[in-house]
Amino acid sequence: MRTILITGSAGFIGSHLVERFLAEGDRVIGVDNYLSGQPSNTQRFLAHPRFSFMEQDVSLGLDCHDALDWVLHFASPASPPHYQTYPIETLMVGAQGTQHALELARRTGARFMLASTSEVYGDPLVHPQPESYWGHVNPNGLRSCYDEAKRYAEALTMAYRRTHGLDTRIIRIFNTYGPRMRADDGRVVTNFINQALSGEPLTVYGDGSQTRSFQFVSDLVEGISRLMQLDCHDPVNLGNPVEVPILRFAEIVRDLVNPSARIVHAPMPADDPKQRRPDIRRAQMLLNWQPRVSLEDGLKETVRYFQRIEIEV
Amino acid sequence: MRTILITGSAGFIGSHLVERFLAEGDRVIGVDNYLSGQPSNTQRFLAHPRFSFMEQDVSLGLDCHDALDWVLHFASPASPPHYQTYPIETLMVGAQGTQHALELARRTGARFMLASTSEVYGDPLVHPQPESYWGHVNPNGLRSCYDEAKRYAEALTMAYRRTHGLDTRIIRIFNTYGPRMRADDGRVVTNFINQALSGEPLTVYGDGSQTRSFQFVSDLVEGISRLMQLDCHDPVNLGNPVEVPILRFAEIVRDLVNPSARIVHAPMPADDPKQRRPDIRRAQMLLNWQPRVSLEDGLKETVRYFQRIEIEV
Repeated sequence: MRTILITGSAGFIGSHLVERFLAEGDRVIGVDNYLSGQPSNTQRFLAHPRFSFMEQDVSLGLDCHDALDWVLHFASPASPPHYQTYPIETLMVGAQGTQHALELARRTGARFMLASTSEVYGDPLVHPQPESYWGHVNPNGLRSCYDEAKRYAEALTMAYRRTHGLDTRIIRIFNTYGPRMRADDGRVVTNFINQALSGEPLTVYGDGSQTRSFQFVSDLVEGISRLMQLDCHDPVNLGNPVEVPILRFAEIVRDLVNPSARIVHAPMPADDPKQRRPDIRRAQMLLNWQPRVSLEDGLKETVRYFQRIEIEV
Repeated sequence: MRTILITGSAGFIGSHLVERFLAEGDRVIGVDNYLSGQPSNTQRFLAHPRFSFMEQDVSLGLDCHDALDWVLHFASPASPPHYQTYPIETLMVGAQGTQHALELARRTGARFMLASTSEVYGDPLVHPQPESYWGHVNPNGLRSCYDEAKRYAEALTMAYRRTHGLDTRIIRIFNTYGPRMRADDGRVVTNFINQALSGEPLTVYGDGSQTRSFQFVSDLVEGISRLMQLDCHDPVNLGNPVEVPILRFAEIVRDLVNPSARIVHAPMPADDPKQRRPDIRRAQMLLNWQPRVSLEDGLKETVRYFQRIEIEV
């Protein structure tokens, strides 16, 4: 039985990791300060005999005296409206937070995994993005609090590996969706679902021919689980390379939720991020992994979740 | 009379700032932990009535209760052999160190200046580099402990400005040389001077046609002093755009130190950094500034310094 500590355990992805490792028979210690995590994501596991929880801000310290096999550092605001509301906290959880998690792994002899992000590629000049691409990030812009924090976290992880021989993993997570996203995430998946559920028209910016790629959360969790079985210290992209035009995306959500809903077009915002798509050849070769869940199936499950919590509210 | 706190006051550039501000009639508080700074750079000012010194590691905190007008954050290992010996300390002084300096400025109502670096441009794909260039940095490589720390420091500085309205400046310092560099700096200026002074041949990698640009430290200090008079929060490049072939550089040093010294050629190392040259139009327009000291004059003064300390040893 492994003991796995997860920072950001009450976040969207963190909570799915808790669920997965409990199902695999592991002991899981969750850590969250609820800056962007949700208490309901702790409550759902509290009765489990192999789950425990510590409400702590990992940027200020990580007070744990258990023997650990893994420290998974997933704590951070991740959606633009959240990290732009908390830029300093976002920078701190990338620097001090990552260092406290690394130090905990070092003290306890645990392995360490950093949840990095496709945002380290910034506004990429190379498509799709392989792990060897160095990225194109504005160090001073409004998004830099997140992008540079994650780049710093990668550099710090490598420094601990080189200096202390820590056994580390770095994953770069591309757009991911699924149940337990925050309704106010502010990105297109929840925006469309919220609009359709509340009977509003779905807003598509521009003509909707611009594409996005979205990975369902269970695919991500499978990739993470496989990477924990292997010895690979270089960053690994985990994302879905299938590109879908935004208009098609809106149509799928509409058809699932409310076929009579209208789709309206609005002018494209100036800072609408350009396309980003993972090159997943490393994960395919190394982990024999690729996304399995179709957009239709993933959205069906996500919509069901939001319909349920709407009824509960 | 301004009161100016300088972190890294015992470093090469820090010590020249101390000298300049004391000469201008300011009160100066120096801070250093001597990780790469030199105690002799503190001793030379200790008798001055307007100078005081605190031996502190700014990454761990900054304990100062004086009223301050400026906090200048210049602490960091800066030469590749130094920061690669101390990668974690280098990352920390960029993150925790910068934050402690920002918090001190915020507490005391002081203005803040970050010493950033041309290394934020990495191995640039654009020549020369204007401040608007986002750079080309490997987030995981051996140099990332320095490059990413400085990019993070810029992002954090901007976050404090946006969140707390702090009055901030960011300078990006290009290659700078002069008296009080460490003899073991490990870069080409001190390497050539050391070799010539000790009667060894000067080693030029490749045929020496590759170029470098070097700014004499008094030009940098003048640019910093001018930027402190102005209200500009965007990064400002400070460097010398004049490119000199490395072979010419070796010849100047040889002729100054030991005209009979030989110049030998060695194979180019694989990771020899490619060219970097500042676009200084912003500093020219904004500060009416440009480098004044010729390479010959600057090297003459630098060689004189190293000849003197050699005699003292």
